[in-house]
Amino acid sequence: MPVNLVAPDPASLHAVPGITLGIGSAGIKKVGRKDVLVMKLADEARVAGVFTKNRFCAAPVQLCREHLAAATPRALVVNTGNANAGTGLDGRARALQVCEALAAQLGVAREAILPFSTGVILEPLPVEKIITALPTAVANLAPANWAEAAEAIMTTDVVSKAASAKVQIGGQTITITGIAKGAGMIHPNMATMLGYVACDAKVAQPLLQQLVKHAADRSFNCITIDGDTSTNDSFMLIATGQTGTEIVDAASAEFAALRDAITAVAQTLAQAIVRDGEGATKFMTVLVEGGRDESECKAVGYAIGRSPLVKTAFFASDPNLGRILAAIGYAGIEDLDVDKLDLYLDDVLVATQGGRNPAYREEDGQRVMNKAEILIRVVLNRGPVAATVWTCDFSYDYVKINADYRS
Amino acid sequence: MPVNLVAPDPASLHAVPGITLGIGSAGIKKVGRKDVLVMKLADEARVAGVFTKNRFCAAPVQLCREHLAAATPRALVVNTGNANAGTGLDGRARALQVCEALAAQLGVAREAILPFSTGVILEPLPVEKIITALPTAVANLAPANWAEAAEAIMTTDVVSKAASAKVQIGGQTITITGIAKGAGMIHPNMATMLGYVACDAKVAQPLLQQLVKHAADRSFNCITIDGDTSTNDSFMLIATGQTGTEIVDAASAEFAALRDAITAVAQTLAQAIVRDGEGATKFMTVLVEGGRDESECKAVGYAIGRSPLVKTAFFASDPNLGRILAAIGYAGIEDLDVDKLDLYLDDVLVATQGGRNPAYREEDGQRVMNKAEILIRVVLNRGPVAATVWTCDFSYDYVKINADYRS
Repeated sequence: MPVNLVAPDPASLHAVPGITLGIGSAGIKKVGRKDVLVMKLADEARVAGVFTKNRFCAAPVQLCREHLAAATPRALVVNTGNANAGTGLDGRARALQVCEALAAQLGVAREAILPFSTGVILEPLPVEKIITALPTAVANLAPANWAEAAEAIMTTDVVSKAASAKVQIGGQTITITGIAKGAGMIHPNMATMLGYVACDAKVAQPLLQQLVKHAADRSFNCITIDGDTSTNDSFMLIATGQTGTEIVDAASAEFAALRDAITAVAQTLAQAIVRDGEGATKFMTVLVEGGRDESECKAVGYAIGRSPLVKTAFFASDPNLGRILAAIGYAGIEDLDVDKLDLYLDDVLVATQGGRNPAYREEDGQRVMNKAEILIRVVLNRGPVAATVWTCDFSYDYVKINADYRS
Repeated sequence: MPVNLVAPDPASLHAVPGITLGIGSAGIKKVGRKDVLVMKLADEARVAGVFTKNRFCAAPVQLCREHLAAATPRALVVNTGNANAGTGLDGRARALQVCEALAAQLGVAREAILPFSTGVILEPLPVEKIITALPTAVANLAPANWAEAAEAIMTTDVVSKAASAKVQIGGQTITITGIAKGAGMIHPNMATMLGYVACDAKVAQPLLQQLVKHAADRSFNCITIDGDTSTNDSFMLIATGQTGTEIVDAASAEFAALRDAITAVAQTLAQAIVRDGEGATKFMTVLVEGGRDESECKAVGYAIGRSPLVKTAFFASDPNLGRILAAIGYAGIEDLDVDKLDLYLDDVLVATQGGRNPAYREEDGQRVMNKAEILIRVVLNRGPVAATVWTCDFSYDYVKINADYRS
């Protein structure tokens, strides 16, 4: 069951002027399931994205990059149930067929369509099914469909994920709404399977690229569930350009305000992915302080967050905390002086100067381990930098879900 | 249950002249369990070792390094149930107390004792219990105790691990016998918790260090169970010097013959650790061919062997083989051309040129997945080098064992 996460209240998700959403059902995995999403953009809209660094990136990811370079996007199309990854040249051809079909219906160039797929790898994309579902999706395009859109992109997710905010920027109200899907194969670069955040601000393209990278590095690139990096991860930021004067200065207060608001929405979505991690029963925040740079703090955070031995101990609520020290030890900091290191579980000082805190009592550790949300705080005591990683535990259900996933 | 692994027949384990073994019971975790092992060496014996690269290496690992540099070892002492890791300066003091107690009983310098511990991290070593058990262990020192020694170093291992061989080298019969323990927290550098191989050859110290590194790189450093690198991993190679003329030339046929025989014994032990991996139901050999160098082949092998999604699919006998491609894609080869890549499952060509083999049929993949021992063969088609990694699947019992380990 997801950790402190419920499906978003549709009433809480604000429509973003300049983007409409339509849902279809292609019957890719199950008949009748919502599994196709079309997002149509106003002419003024601009899109920036970050994608998986997996060398086996899916055909739609390859096409997205090319289309973003070639044209101004006018629509996005997402299918679940099939990743169109590990499908070679045939996979590219099929993804392009989807783009062509939607482009024809919307009367735009095929390069103006950005395709996305998520699901099983190494199986041919059922392109005819998807194309058949497109007219329905196009017919029900509407600004208020965010909750349905969040449902349409789910795979092994238990609950849908969406977040929304309104902020005052330069005397204007800017609306930000986003959706994401995750559940498994979750590790950074990108750390989510799919995430889409739209706002109605007007942002110059180079600044939009800065914004999406900034937000990703503080949200989807701070989470891990199983350490598996997906072939299809994509996080897209859309600025529909319907509100306000264009933001062109990265040093402006407007840029900073928009950046922070978008990052906050992205963080909510990224944390929702962890809360709904496959089989998750606990949500852990790993805060690594006192590092020399961010990369070493992240490396320690990920070593802890990814360790099956740490994750199974948390599942069992067993304060077997030496496993955290072992993970810190293999995080790859060659000159780490472990004798300077402190480890806290919430407010409990477990280890100090690299050894067990003499005042530490097992019952204090147990008290924290029994909680559903736990802070693991590591103080490296070698520099001024901190970083955070969010992760979940590793349960029987993780194995069950991933052993059964295709059946 | 271990995959095609049974406890060694004591009659198959040859005594190695120049080393005697004695077992004691300190009651560290359970009363009456064999949990202390002493190995006493002849005066002519030489010892070389490789150790974990975990920065949180245990106190006994630190002492082992220092003692190896300071004196010729005369005995080794191992306890299970407590790793003496994450224990700071107090941990060093306790490990040294064990050395001093054994040294006094054997009438040698304390630096001539090499200490080893394995078990729970972050808990104080029960040094009094261990010292109390030493006289019994010393009293029953005998050359034939290899099977009992293998039992005495077990923790979550289901069956004990030992292997033995006799080889003709330079007209002499050389005996090689080794023991190991593993089960969990298994990943290279070093990839085993503890391994000890002894032979009665006479080997110059620098060559012995070459031998142990060579054997480790082809055995314990080729396995992964959960990706967690231990704080205590140690692999020690002992040459008791009781047989033959001293090997002093690394280019000699004698050196090569001994090297290969020791490596074979170490491989048997390393594979036994994987076969007895926590919760393992399948044994997988990951062979990566056509790489530019060994490190990239190993990186691909480990990405596959460590992936929870690959491991749970094998547990389920589900040929969800796109997960293997995804793991290859995130193995870190920046310029990997996935369109050149072939993937085989045993003799079945699953993917070719980066996409699904058109002739691949799911039932062929299923036939292989149903087996208990499976070859995953990746052909990178970018160079002449190959490397092998051995791994196991990820089951409910992995979670169960590691959720319950301390209780």
